[in-house]
Amino acid sequence: MIYVTRRAEFSASHYYHNPELSPEENRRIFGKCNNPHGHGHNYTLEVTVAGDVDSKTGMVLDIKDLKQLVEDEVLQSMDHRFLNKEVPVFSSTLPTTENIAVEIWKRLAQKLPNGKLHRIRLYETPDLYVDYFGEA
Amino acid sequence: MIYVTRRAEFSASHYYHNPELSPEENRRIFGKCNNPHGHGHNYTLEVTVAGDVDSKTGMVLDIKDLKQLVEDEVLQSMDHRFLNKEVPVFSSTLPTTENIAVEIWKRLAQKLPNGKLHRIRLYETPDLYVDYFGEA
Amino acid sequence: MIYVTRRAEFSASHYYHNPELSPEENRRIFGKCNNPHGHGHNYTLEVTVAGDVDSKTGMVLDIKDLKQLVEDEVLQSMDHRFLNKEVPVFSSTLPTTENIAVEIWKRLAQKLPNGKLHRIRLYETPDLYVDYFGEA
Amino acid sequence: MIYVTRRAEFSASHYYHNPELSPEENRRIFGKCNNPHGHGHNYTLEVTVAGDVDSKTGMVLDIKDLKQLVEDEVLQSMDHRFLNKEVPVFSSTLPTTENIAVEIWKRLAQKLPNGKLHRIRLYETPDLYVDYFGEA
Amino acid sequence: MIYVTRRAEFSASHYYHNPELSPEENRRIFGKCNNPHGHGHNYTLEVTVAGDVDSKTGMVLDIKDLKQLVEDEVLQSMDHRFLNKEVPVFSSTLPTTENIAVEIWKRLAQKLPNGKLHRIRLYETPDLYVDYFGEA
Amino acid sequence: MIYVTRRAEFSASHYYHNPELSPEENRRIFGKCNNPHGHGHNYTLEVTVAGDVDSKTGMVLDIKDLKQLVEDEVLQSMDHRFLNKEVPVFSSTLPTTENIAVEIWKRLAQKLPNGKLHRIRLYETPDLYVDYFGEA
Repeated sequence: MIYVTRRAEFSASHYYHNPELSPEENRRIFGKCNNPHGHGHNYTLEVTVAGDVDSKTGMVLDIKDLKQLVEDEVLQSMDHRFLNKEVPVFSSTLPTTENIAVEIWKRLAQKLPNGKLHRIRLYETPDLYVDYFGEA
Repeated sequence: MIYVTRRAEFSASHYYHNPELSPEENRRIFGKCNNPHGHGHNYTLEVTVAGDVDSKTGMVLDIKDLKQLVEDEVLQSMDHRFLNKEVPVFSSTLPTTENIAVEIWKRLAQKLPNGKLHRIRLYETPDLYVDYFGEA
Repeated sequence: MIYVTRRAEFSASHYYHNPELSPEENRRIFGKCNNPHGHGHNYTLEVTVAGDVDSKTGMVLDIKDLKQLVEDEVLQSMDHRFLNKEVPVFSSTLPTTENIAVEIWKRLAQKLPNGKLHRIRLYETPDLYVDYFGEA
Repeated sequence: MIYVTRRAEFSASHYYHNPELSPEENRRIFGKCNNPHGHGHNYTLEVTVAGDVDSKTGMVLDIKDLKQLVEDEVLQSMDHRFLNKEVPVFSSTLPTTENIAVEIWKRLAQKLPNGKLHRIRLYETPDLYVDYFGEA
Repeated sequence: MIYVTRRAEFSASHYYHNPELSPEENRRIFGKCNNPHGHGHNYTLEVTVAGDVDSKTGMVLDIKDLKQLVEDEVLQSMDHRFLNKEVPVFSSTLPTTENIAVEIWKRLAQKLPNGKLHRIRLYETPDLYVDYFGEA
Repeated sequence: MIYVTRRAEFSASHYYHNPELSPEENRRIFGKCNNPHGHGHNYTLEVTVAGDVDSKTGMVLDIKDLKQLVEDEVLQSMDHRFLNKEVPVFSSTLPTTENIAVEIWKRLAQKLPNGKLHRIRLYETPDLYVDYFGEA
């Protein structure tokens, strides 16, 4: 059992606003992130796949396939986008680092050509990241 | 003569659109960056000040002063902002990495407590940065 | 269940000397680190908190709260300090990377506003780090 | 229980070719990596050792010993080498990142002076790495 | 006048051997790098272009064009290659970091769509790099 | 003409105190750095040598020689040291990043085997560095 991690980057903007809270609560909880014009980040995504090494290829999975899957399922719709306005799930779910990581898990978990999705790590900045292992 | 460089970070969103060009030209030239909703980056700014070492302090300038100046003149108005909509100069000037660097130069050059502004380096991503030395 | 990690930095000095060992043993075991004048590092600390995502905020905990807690409990007393002389626990415990990590765990584990402390990672240099999960 | 990680680097070249596959299959599966002249990487290796903190030294193990072990068992034979041609195991096993990590585990697991080998992490590039925990 | 830098990476292998020197001299001068099987690196290339900002685009040059030029002129022939054997100029010139940087300069200097080539920076490892400004 | 840069690291502690200033002035100017117990950093040093490429070796100078010179002239006396107390020049000169860089220049400039010392870059932290080119 080996864990293979591939890194990718995307640039997106977002803001945090919960319509069920008052404007004051939104400002207090979300601070600068409540600005409705949005602000942005260079997100760094790490996708980790667990599996056995295929003796024919010496690999858990073909990294070119994993790269293409991340391109198709994540980067195509999130890179250079305003997440709240252009990625449907984030019109009703706050696009926090936590929720983006869970959304990426959902998009990738059933589509891996080999192995099993083990972890989604998402850096919002070099100093802040989340890990999601698909645990309820 | 010593050159002292202080790094700072800010997160902002922007998009590129020149109203004097046709929509087709805008899309061709700016590609994904033409999306009017904006997208974002973690910008890394390096401010370099050149000067003589003050024999009393062993320093070119007090780094706490430089940090405060960058906070007041740059981060306060650009961090967690949509540059096109919230920083007035960028309503009429494209907020490209080049133009943001020049704007930061203008904001800092006359206000240094000691030394002379030597270089503004601005990273849009780890793979793309510009340097501006105040040259016409 | 999501794991959120926040990074912080502090600069400190330390040295290694066990008074129950002979001077020769101290020199042999600790090498250059036995120098009583001390030497220093830019420590990088990663604090990981595990918890459920709060549907109201989309977050495990308010990162501003976590940042303040690390500031109050760790940086205030360790940043710009000689650990052996200025942090009481390290007058009787060697301030190795291992022991500093355990000490930081003790200071933070009971004080988190939400979630559960999962891991303390501490880099002494980019090439050497320890992880502590609170395991006996 | 603490986990101590030490990083090391080595530069090596390799290529991927499975003699049981046809030339066409080799090219399709391995792409540019099938070039028999080889190509190279700056590999970054992280060795993680788990153990209790020795109260005499405040450490899990002497990092100088671990550094020497990695030098003797890994760097001496892999650094500045063409892995397929100069490291015997890789004449019959593909020198993929997965297989190199497993080989390094085998070389180190029985020889640690203290503690237990917990993880081998090997970066082929900053964007691609594998983790091996000795699991069958 | 602004300086724009774009980073790219490639993986290649090489070795150092000067046929006009004796085997002993080759070994003494080049050490581990004299191994004829070759060894490899993840090279990081920075290409810096100097120019005026085009008021129509806010840019010195279209970064997509620069990226394509580096792909066509450098990466196509050097990435995943054994430089001594597969890049003709390096059959007679030692593929040192210095000489590779000069070769990249020659390939790019006349082909920029806008601006003037200012600097080629080439990292062999994170701890060793060269800069070439086209000076004789 | 090529510029070759080699990086090295050392860990040291220091503090800032000018005996010609009052205690209050020392505290105001140097803040946390005025703590007489000292605090420390992982310094990163970059030494840049300018020179012509030797056609026999393809190099400006033998990097092994440069590495040894930095070891002998800088690391031997500064690594794992309290600079104020253990490096004589810093008993009378403040060991600021600026002054350490100038001191390293003086130690290396006359001793290079080939080429000419071009720049000393010294990082105190990843966010603060100085450059010295030997200019009066």
